[in-house]
Amino acid sequence: MQSQHIVSAYDDELKFLARKIAAMGGQAERMVDQAIAALVNADPALGQRVIQDDVVLDEAQREIDDKAILIIARRQPMATDLREIIGAIRISADLERVGDLGKNIAKRVSAVAEGRQPNSLFRGLEALAELALTQLKEVLDVYASRSVERIGFVRDRDEQIDAMYTSLFRELLTYMMEDPRNITPCTHLLFVAKNIERIGDHATNIAETIYYIVTGEQMPPERPKEDKSHRVTLESGGKPG
Amino acid sequence: MQSQHIVSAYDDELKFLARKIAAMGGQAERMVDQAIAALVNADPALGQRVIQDDVVLDEAQREIDDKAILIIARRQPMATDLREIIGAIRISADLERVGDLGKNIAKRVSAVAEGRQPNSLFRGLEALAELALTQLKEVLDVYASRSVERIGFVRDRDEQIDAMYTSLFRELLTYMMEDPRNITPCTHLLFVAKNIERIGDHATNIAETIYYIVTGEQMPPERPKEDKSHRVTLESGGKPG
Repeated sequence: MQSQHIVSAYDDELKFLARKIAAMGGQAERMVDQAIAALVNADPALGQRVIQDDVVLDEAQREIDDKAILIIARRQPMATDLREIIGAIRISADLERVGDLGKNIAKRVSAVAEGRQPNSLFRGLEALAELALTQLKEVLDVYASRSVERIGFVRDRDEQIDAMYTSLFRELLTYMMEDPRNITPCTHLLFVAKNIERIGDHATNIAETIYYIVTGEQMPPERPKEDKSHRVTLESGGKPG
Repeated sequence: MQSQHIVSAYDDELKFLARKIAAMGGQAERMVDQAIAALVNADPALGQRVIQDDVVLDEAQREIDDKAILIIARRQPMATDLREIIGAIRISADLERVGDLGKNIAKRVSAVAEGRQPNSLFRGLEALAELALTQLKEVLDVYASRSVERIGFVRDRDEQIDAMYTSLFRELLTYMMEDPRNITPCTHLLFVAKNIERIGDHATNIAETIYYIVTGEQMPPERPKEDKSHRVTLESGGKPG
């Protein structure tokens, strides 16, 4: 049933997708890293560069989508190859969204720079971003090597990210209650923290896609998909409620 | 090249995908609608039902994915049919995410219910949700009818949603500055508002996918993808800055 094809050309096409995904991953990481640096150093020029970089990622996603569909139409792949190609479409959508989240952080640089926040908050955001970016980087390493047996770290680290996010959420609410002048910048930092936490979720999505590519099965068991911050309430004055 | 198939069985498979998408859309709308009702009426039991409903949507997405990949592998579809199937995978991912956002709103019911917020805030959230759900519903109508020439409304309404979100964002910051006891519940409402705004974005994504399914082209021109809330700063005391 399957059309004949020159195997090496076909392999090149699949490798093209994998290379393009790796490049997207590298750029998404860089965007988030620079967005956090722009925020911490109150550097709106760097923030602007991150915002501009986002079109490159959008373009890359479109290119992967077009190429993937072309390969399916032309090669009529079966089983593993088909999962590989559909997987590339999914992963590039997650990476494009990570870039969007980086852009969203970069856009808040000016609003946050209007007041100076305690260093501990910025250190907390940097630590959260580092954890999320490490997660993304290691997931992309698993994608490159297809070493799906190593993928167990994903859920553990996702829980760490959620816990760190919830603790930052609490800290930000405390600062807001201490002084109303903190409310506006800390609200923007709350969204920054949420954006970083979402990057961890996208890394987990990618891990699930890789597992599916390699095994053809859904990754068990269902991960606890959410942070706990929705339960956080603080009494006025900052006492955890 | 293409394998022979019994056309009517193939058509049935494609119709199955479209029907399943319509059902997912209906359920995602209902979840968001009920989550907002639970929030406004401080009804945690209704919130809990929304949270539980989310697994059905997750399951439906998995079913669509599995079916889509099976159809591609078995039918080796070309051009339009292939776009249709890849489109179903994309749209179901957007709808699953809308359900997640509904669940996320439902989880905040208890934290928000701890303080009573001004009615105007709840009216604002309801209006925003109504606009976003109308957007989603009309986009899904376009999907059902493939009347892609009607799709012009999408970008206009997306701008309305963003403007209404930014205005709510400002109002919430004002309440937070007026009284520190408002900070915790209003922070949760900020996230609710952001979640609703994201539903509008997913509706726009779906519109772009439908355009792609029908025409094979990307939907022009690039929409202005973001709300303006990242620029909002308020002086202590609530004066817009």
